[in-house]
Amino acid sequence: MAIFTPSEQVLAAQILKLKQEAGSHSPSIFTFKQKLPQLDIKVDACFLSNPYATELFLEYFNHEIVETGKIRDLLEWYPSQNAVIAEILADFLKLKPEHIFIGNGAIEIIQAIVHNFTEKKILINIPTFSSYYEYAKEGVEVVYNQLLKEHDYAIDIEGYISRVKEEQPDTIVLINPNNPNGAYLTTDELRHIVTELHFVKNIIIDESFIHFAYEDKAFRLISTGNWVEEFPNLIVLKSMSKDFGIAGVRAGYGIMQKEKVSTLLKTGYLWNSNGLAEYFFRLYTRADFAYNYEKVRVKYILETMEFIADLKTIPNIRVYPSKANFVLVEIIGGRSSAEIVSLLLIKYGIYVRTCEDKIGLQGDYIRLASRSKAENDYILQSFRDVFQ
Amino acid sequence: MAIFTPSEQVLAAQILKLKQEAGSHSPSIFTFKQKLPQLDIKVDACFLSNPYATELFLEYFNHEIVETGKIRDLLEWYPSQNAVIAEILADFLKLKPEHIFIGNGAIEIIQAIVHNFTEKKILINIPTFSSYYEYAKEGVEVVYNQLLKEHDYAIDIEGYISRVKEEQPDTIVLINPNNPNGAYLTTDELRHIVTELHFVKNIIIDESFIHFAYEDKAFRLISTGNWVEEFPNLIVLKSMSKDFGIAGVRAGYGIMQKEKVSTLLKTGYLWNSNGLAEYFFRLYTRADFAYNYEKVRVKYILETMEFIADLKTIPNIRVYPSKANFVLVEIIGGRSSAEIVSLLLIKYGIYVRTCEDKIGLQGDYIRLASRSKAENDYILQSFRDVFQ
Repeated sequence: MAIFTPSEQVLAAQILKLKQEAGSHSPSIFTFKQKLPQLDIKVDACFLSNPYATELFLEYFNHEIVETGKIRDLLEWYPSQNAVIAEILADFLKLKPEHIFIGNGAIEIIQAIVHNFTEKKILINIPTFSSYYEYAKEGVEVVYNQLLKEHDYAIDIEGYISRVKEEQPDTIVLINPNNPNGAYLTTDELRHIVTELHFVKNIIIDESFIHFAYEDKAFRLISTGNWVEEFPNLIVLKSMSKDFGIAGVRAGYGIMQKEKVSTLLKTGYLWNSNGLAEYFFRLYTRADFAYNYEKVRVKYILETMEFIADLKTIPNIRVYPSKANFVLVEIIGGRSSAEIVSLLLIKYGIYVRTCEDKIGLQGDYIRLASRSKAENDYILQSFRDVFQ
Repeated sequence: MAIFTPSEQVLAAQILKLKQEAGSHSPSIFTFKQKLPQLDIKVDACFLSNPYATELFLEYFNHEIVETGKIRDLLEWYPSQNAVIAEILADFLKLKPEHIFIGNGAIEIIQAIVHNFTEKKILINIPTFSSYYEYAKEGVEVVYNQLLKEHDYAIDIEGYISRVKEEQPDTIVLINPNNPNGAYLTTDELRHIVTELHFVKNIIIDESFIHFAYEDKAFRLISTGNWVEEFPNLIVLKSMSKDFGIAGVRAGYGIMQKEKVSTLLKTGYLWNSNGLAEYFFRLYTRADFAYNYEKVRVKYILETMEFIADLKTIPNIRVYPSKANFVLVEIIGGRSSAEIVSLLLIKYGIYVRTCEDKIGLQGDYIRLASRSKAENDYILQSFRDVFQ
């Protein structure tokens, strides 16, 4: 096991401080570079994205936008309004444009939904993505449904349905696959839940990681977005930052009842997309891009499956089942997650997410993203070094 | 006077339809290019920006971001959180960071303020920027203060103060210079208004066009942002899209009471800046950039003054006094603004903003932006052709 030098101990304390300042999220790579330039970050395994899709997007972007000088248009002019971009997406998603709300990242949509449609009580499974409970307005009751460690923090479906019936919240949230553990509900299971819970005003299904999940050997894309006419209480959210590794672009969309979209657009959200996000959405819906994206999506799923299988062979950690592009890793044997995070960052240049701030986890955990094959190999080698 | 051919008449009808679909704002250049590719737009005099500042920004951007390949970092990674970017701006603005709220464009800040802090009644001078009344929540009373044509739609200061005292709104809005007419309140006048109206909960001063205003021959930058500790009810908003012509980047900030900033950040707005906006704010606060920007800002003001003086010599239009980078132009002699807008667009490739949808204007108006010297000369020549 590596031991810190005095200067590394100082660095470890600074890392801890930056994390504390960032609250329930992680400090950005920019912040690290600016405040701790002595850190040599080799792999960002905190960032949950498909690096091959980022490469693909950048190829198109460089060719079509940078090399042609069209970047100026994207920076200079007003982007299209929300409804115009919704129209671009509608055909591709096989939905009516009136069902689509475009967001400045999925997090803006979470905020819009929770601020505008959650009136009394929101029931949230924990551990989960913190914004769902942090964004609840004053006066809204937040009820937690603790996912059980002995069930690998997966949802106990019948228990969940009973709990919702008992609590009668106006909003419930299902992240599928869930963050931070990657547990997955199949389409059949979700349909069962949604059917049973027809009385809940807002059922949010967050599909931000759905492009990495699979139910068959063809790895066909899954989505419940098209259920929105059948289940008018459904709100399906999607961040684009994970599939494409374009968190700096800020692009996401929500699929919901037409009345909900028009309520939101009536008093806001007119120009909430930037020029790059508009370009992204136009590209995303193009057949040539979609064809190429599908190839790198499946390639990445296959590599992620292999990465997770290899991680499971490493001693002194427990790797939870995941159908997302990350795994929840429990540290066994008494070392704290803060220590492991600093160790990986300082000695190996690997940035992983501590889960100390995640409510609902019992034990010491980190969340580890699957990156490129070469990066995954480096992570595996470093983990063997640290944990063996 | 030019007359439309039958195909041009069809085009004129299509332009009108696009405008109607865009509601109280203007269709974007993207929308025009996509839906009416036969239009040859030479000058976008609808877009209110300093083209020299856009050039300057693009020089830096190309050199520092595109040529170095750093564009990838801006697109791929999560940008910094709201408070981190506020800290970058604080020193430059000579303010405490806790007073600064970063927005995805100023329009997001308008929405945030009006949704969160306007509870009962908002008093709005008309004509004005429509979002201030459109974004009022259900249940909020919107009261209009009609600016008078015989006063060139400028504010009658004492009359305004009396009206506010009488109406007792919780929110008032002063856009300075005002949009769409460019009328300007001096710093002394504003201080008088703000002092008299100490009882109003939220006084919004929108300084989106303040970089084009001047009170002395050195054209020194003006702002009331630093009054925020003295007047805790003040909220100073600023779009960056006008000074820098970077509407596609979506960058703005608001200066307000610390408690207001923390209320907003408590339940949202965490990652509402994109990677380009973060780069912009970091650049904006750098001494080398600020020095160069100041030169092009003053150059543009001087050219705009000359442009407005020349416009005033053209017959059959009335040019309203303006200290912004645009003028309100009244069309005299019976031709409608819709006709003029189509004529300028189809025959001359000049895109100007119709003011038909602006409430509070009596007559036929267009709003015309000052552009580069060459573009302004082309506009002048075309206007002489159309109106002489």
